[in-house]
Amino acid sequence: MTVPVDHRFLILADGQFGPMSSKTANSCLRYFPERIVGVFDRIEAGKTVQDVLGFGGTIPVVGDFALGLSLGGGASAVLVGIAPAGGQLPEEWRGWLKLAIEQKLEVWSGLHTFITDDPELGGLARRLGVRILDARKPPAHLPIADGRAGEVDAYVAHAVGSDCNVGKMTAMLEVRNALVRQGRKARFVATGQTGIFIEGWGTAVDAVVADFIAGAAEDLVLKAAQDADIVLVEGQGSLIHPGYSGVTLGLLHGSMPRGLILCHQPSREYIGDYHGREPWVKIPPLSDLVRIYEDAARPVLPTKVLGICLNTFDLDAAAARRAVTAAVAETGLPAADPVRFDSAPLADAIARAATEWHQSR
Amino acid sequence: MTVPVDHRFLILADGQFGPMSSKTANSCLRYFPERIVGVFDRIEAGKTVQDVLGFGGTIPVVGDFALGLSLGGGASAVLVGIAPAGGQLPEEWRGWLKLAIEQKLEVWSGLHTFITDDPELGGLARRLGVRILDARKPPAHLPIADGRAGEVDAYVAHAVGSDCNVGKMTAMLEVRNALVRQGRKARFVATGQTGIFIEGWGTAVDAVVADFIAGAAEDLVLKAAQDADIVLVEGQGSLIHPGYSGVTLGLLHGSMPRGLILCHQPSREYIGDYHGREPWVKIPPLSDLVRIYEDAARPVLPTKVLGICLNTFDLDAAAARRAVTAAVAETGLPAADPVRFDSAPLADAIARAATEWHQSR
Repeated sequence: MTVPVDHRFLILADGQFGPMSSKTANSCLRYFPERIVGVFDRIEAGKTVQDVLGFGGTIPVVGDFALGLSLGGGASAVLVGIAPAGGQLPEEWRGWLKLAIEQKLEVWSGLHTFITDDPELGGLARRLGVRILDARKPPAHLPIADGRAGEVDAYVAHAVGSDCNVGKMTAMLEVRNALVRQGRKARFVATGQTGIFIEGWGTAVDAVVADFIAGAAEDLVLKAAQDADIVLVEGQGSLIHPGYSGVTLGLLHGSMPRGLILCHQPSREYIGDYHGREPWVKIPPLSDLVRIYEDAARPVLPTKVLGICLNTFDLDAAAARRAVTAAVAETGLPAADPVRFDSAPLADAIARAATEWHQSR
Repeated sequence: MTVPVDHRFLILADGQFGPMSSKTANSCLRYFPERIVGVFDRIEAGKTVQDVLGFGGTIPVVGDFALGLSLGGGASAVLVGIAPAGGQLPEEWRGWLKLAIEQKLEVWSGLHTFITDDPELGGLARRLGVRILDARKPPAHLPIADGRAGEVDAYVAHAVGSDCNVGKMTAMLEVRNALVRQGRKARFVATGQTGIFIEGWGTAVDAVVADFIAGAAEDLVLKAAQDADIVLVEGQGSLIHPGYSGVTLGLLHGSMPRGLILCHQPSREYIGDYHGREPWVKIPPLSDLVRIYEDAARPVLPTKVLGICLNTFDLDAAAARRAVTAAVAETGLPAADPVRFDSAPLADAIARAATEWHQSR
């Protein structure tokens, strides 16, 4: 599978570029600033991304779309980084996207309205052979999961978590990078929008019809395993999350991992998506979470938590070190904050488990 | 909430009426034959439903649509009981459905293509104020579940199971009927197509976008609780089903039941939807299943399995009795086959738990 991870993106965020108003754009600027030539927004034009977001360095914000396309030696793709009000494509966007497609630039979008399905833009792209990547659009034909992910020749590991937004994607990306540096054929499987933008392929499993969650996960694992020895499946949600647990369990059963990385933010005591109400679902201790995930997976395919990934960004250095030490002591497993400290404990745990599994077959 | 459960249906099954080819029609004929005036199929016309399916008695199969509408004193609704090849509405169907709508008959459909969205038929129905019930169509605006199902004034019970197709819907319908006979304000909540056809409302939770499984369940519980003291939520799939477990967990967390009925077919040893491959996922003992469901629910809302519902249709009477006795001995809970024997053990267990819960508030 060839993935175009070398794009130079112009981000379309016209009229909405800001810390709270352009979530998709901001994720991309955080995770792959080196691939972004500029941001198009007529309101913030003239500033840098750093000026607007507080991170992102000297990436320019421009107010002229054609100029934006020419930045950094020329953009190779346009990334839609905001959602237009009402969900419909504004007429002006239409002109800009048409211009990009006519110049054979790919269009990547996280909109709920799929650009592929737009008669004018989708039709133009098909005629010109230009790819449109609608990150939220499920594949047309998903299977009902039937265990084929358990039959691949690659070792499958999966990130699970105490909650949403605790670093599951980052954990797997950091581990993938470390394993690739060690010479392993490791592959990251994106299951959410940002991961899809980072890798250029994947399926937003929370956007598929409920019957096909596990099937979507299986489909991704089969694809990734074609040219990898280790497949690292991004996680979503949490088995104890009242809103999203179904996605989490479908992903766990469909991807059939042999090993898990359990992700957690040590400072978080309660499931965090319910700010509108009293703290409600308390996050149990790590050792309970290890059991909850292993128990849930077992009937379909037994699996083991191999390591604990901690997101300590909001702790001081000493508290972060203590959290890592405490996680090791509590679970008897390797633990790390792969961003702040080192991904080696997690990468090594997966590498070791993968080697043992490959040798045992 | 007013539900039209007194319809007289003509079932549209033209060209496909048969034991293996008209699943939706057959479910309806099995569950509410008393509401069906006839089946329209030009191939089997002249026979009875009994002739074609082996059950269903003297309900006639007719080859003239207008004649069908006039059967039994006049149909009040048309129920689409088959899926046309290719998913598109054939031109002939269009004429028939138009005729029905013009006569102010409701149209109920389990098609993946929604009749509501058909410009001609949907438009005509809206102009005439005729309801079209697309059983698979999710509501337009579903919430992300946020725990409101746990705050209703009704006692919520939910059917869960060892597998698909073990009698979860039937269990709750039988219990509902028993509780209503006892004078309780009990309400059945349909979460799948057949249940929706039986009750006239509900949401097929396996057809919603994955992020909204729990939200769809919450939405249904809130609606049902408006005029019930006991809400009985139909289950889907199984927590150990490799393909559908996500739907099951979302439904469990979203509906926030205080009590569960665990449904099982004693003769089934393995998850049954995988006939194409070796027996794979072994169904654990009932006592393990009790623990699996209680453990899965606990982080969101602790719940208890109140009784075991057995589907013994494929056992002889002595073996069926033994299965019930064995389930009681193994779990210490009431057990019953509510269709073959008596729903009282399950209905009483729920009534008792509901009374205690109402008194404790």
